[in-house]
Amino acid sequence: MDNGVKGLVILGSTGSIGRQTLDVVRSFPDRFSVIGLAAGRNTDLLVQQVNEFSPSLVCCTAPCPELEDLPANGRRWVSLEEMVCHPDVDVVMMATVGKVGLEPTLAALRQGKTVALSNKEVIVAAGELVMAEARRSKGSLLPVDSEPSAIWQCLRGEDSVSRLILTASGGPFRERPLDELADVTPEEALKHPTWSMGNKITIDSSTLMNKGFEVIESHHLFDIPYDQIDVVVHPQSAVHSLVEFTDGSIKAQIGPTDMRLPIQYALTYPERWHNSQTPRMGPLAQMQFTFYELDTPRYPCFGLAVDAGKKGGTYPAVLSAADEVAVNLFLERRIGFTDIFKVVERVLDMHTPVYNPSLEEILAADQWARDAAAG
Amino acid sequence: MDNGVKGLVILGSTGSIGRQTLDVVRSFPDRFSVIGLAAGRNTDLLVQQVNEFSPSLVCCTAPCPELEDLPANGRRWVSLEEMVCHPDVDVVMMATVGKVGLEPTLAALRQGKTVALSNKEVIVAAGELVMAEARRSKGSLLPVDSEPSAIWQCLRGEDSVSRLILTASGGPFRERPLDELADVTPEEALKHPTWSMGNKITIDSSTLMNKGFEVIESHHLFDIPYDQIDVVVHPQSAVHSLVEFTDGSIKAQIGPTDMRLPIQYALTYPERWHNSQTPRMGPLAQMQFTFYELDTPRYPCFGLAVDAGKKGGTYPAVLSAADEVAVNLFLERRIGFTDIFKVVERVLDMHTPVYNPSLEEILAADQWARDAAAG
Repeated sequence: MDNGVKGLVILGSTGSIGRQTLDVVRSFPDRFSVIGLAAGRNTDLLVQQVNEFSPSLVCCTAPCPELEDLPANGRRWVSLEEMVCHPDVDVVMMATVGKVGLEPTLAALRQGKTVALSNKEVIVAAGELVMAEARRSKGSLLPVDSEPSAIWQCLRGEDSVSRLILTASGGPFRERPLDELADVTPEEALKHPTWSMGNKITIDSSTLMNKGFEVIESHHLFDIPYDQIDVVVHPQSAVHSLVEFTDGSIKAQIGPTDMRLPIQYALTYPERWHNSQTPRMGPLAQMQFTFYELDTPRYPCFGLAVDAGKKGGTYPAVLSAADEVAVNLFLERRIGFTDIFKVVERVLDMHTPVYNPSLEEILAADQWARDAAAG
Repeated sequence: MDNGVKGLVILGSTGSIGRQTLDVVRSFPDRFSVIGLAAGRNTDLLVQQVNEFSPSLVCCTAPCPELEDLPANGRRWVSLEEMVCHPDVDVVMMATVGKVGLEPTLAALRQGKTVALSNKEVIVAAGELVMAEARRSKGSLLPVDSEPSAIWQCLRGEDSVSRLILTASGGPFRERPLDELADVTPEEALKHPTWSMGNKITIDSSTLMNKGFEVIESHHLFDIPYDQIDVVVHPQSAVHSLVEFTDGSIKAQIGPTDMRLPIQYALTYPERWHNSQTPRMGPLAQMQFTFYELDTPRYPCFGLAVDAGKKGGTYPAVLSAADEVAVNLFLERRIGFTDIFKVVERVLDMHTPVYNPSLEEILAADQWARDAAAG
């Protein structure tokens, strides 16, 4: 858009990242214009958001008659693809969960848009395809997740990378005896020690599946081989990640555990804006940062994810889809906590991969994995 | 020079930083050419260095007849100013101690050379003058000291700074009872807990005078107001310093306590070179970084230095010169450890400052301070 105002659409506006994105927009009312909002089933909140931000484009999976009662002022119902491709859009916040983000991401990149990617399943399932599209078009793909954002910030102005080091809090069960993990309840797994996030990512964080996804995401986003990506446990979640350079120097990015910071960084990049409404790090004095080796037997989902990433082809799409089903089964108390790994492992073992898959082949593998995981 | 070979001169080649600079040169024999070496009194080592690196220009404060016995091959005795201005010189490593570095630094900048500055007394005593010369000429002034180098690395690619945070190990007396500090011996003060350095800087590190110098250096080098420069105690000396940006994000630079890394970074900037002969950080796992507030009553020299920096004019030159004398008096056992502060404070109190001083006025203030401190 003109006048330095950024035209923004948010896919998944009623979820955790969507709401925090709108919080950032509230801090800079003159610098963002919300062009479109898309939500799934939380129609009450979507109506409030449309009332507050007056987007011209709206999309909702569930029927939403309340919106029809609001004065329309030229507002239109559109598809996700149509929304992200609108000429006034500069930045697409892709904050949906799961594969629904895949086609709009590709469409936005094709139009040369900037996509701020919170939905990491998109890049896990279709990393090669999405990165190829970003290279072909003038679009760009920016991380929103705090660890890949930290890596991206550390890489700023640098080009001699030797190693990425992602930090992991270790989740709520870092010290729980291994033989008690099978009894973990959804309520326990949803209590993350340092971050407040949506349900799916909180469970994925407790199994460290999420960290495996971040390894795959970082491999694609930053074009770094898997054997140059390490993970270290850092219970305080203050150091969000680190990069080692060829000369042995290491840079770390540090910040409060508040998603609005990496969200804002993706929205304002390459600028950094002062936001008086987001928290600062407390004083460094009296702080203590500890680091531990990843206890891999405790987190079998992590190894499973990295292996699927290394194998490539349709394996990561199957990983992501099977995990989504398994996490839902766990949240519905139909399987135990340690069964999440077993379900995903079983589905990966059964899979006949396709290499260099097309979008259709990725979507087919995704659907196959969902059926296999649920069966 | 041509062919990507960097022409290098080292002023202070037999000191700690000079020797480590030559270590870096040894790792890259095809990428550096040592044009000149200058030393003070360690003529034995200078002769060895001239034998090994065959510089065409040599300077030595003490008589050095052994050098005359070596085959000259066009080698010439020159002044420091002549050495740094030679057309083959790309980078000047300014690794002398004290005010002797001041005039060659200004001369090198005037010729558009890159000056890698280890001698921080130069920028402490004459910060405004030196930075004005760097701005006027095409020369550049790069930090070598690990903390300012860390700040410089964190600032790479960034322009929205809100705060610099220098780390300090706290020196060997961080936990010694305050009433025992008067009895500290030179031997105790020369045992730095984390860094192996020259004598002067090791004593300055034990009083934290050195950290005050770094605050003044960072103020000038990075053009940041004093009230946006903080110091935090970090006993492990792993995090070399940090920068907070306007959005609240913090970057830290981390590395082993080995001066060859920041030396090499200054010599190869903007590139980072892989050097198999310098140590890497050990694995992050099992590491612990702690941070503490600076205990200012324990380190009165720190406050004295920052105050002198803030006052400006000839005060920092007086600070630096009086400290040099006081440290020597302490090393010669003519004053006690806590007298270093008293000597420097007394001299600063007696000083009648000149603001916006010329080089001559800075040198006069320096001489006055030396006489006053010794008196």
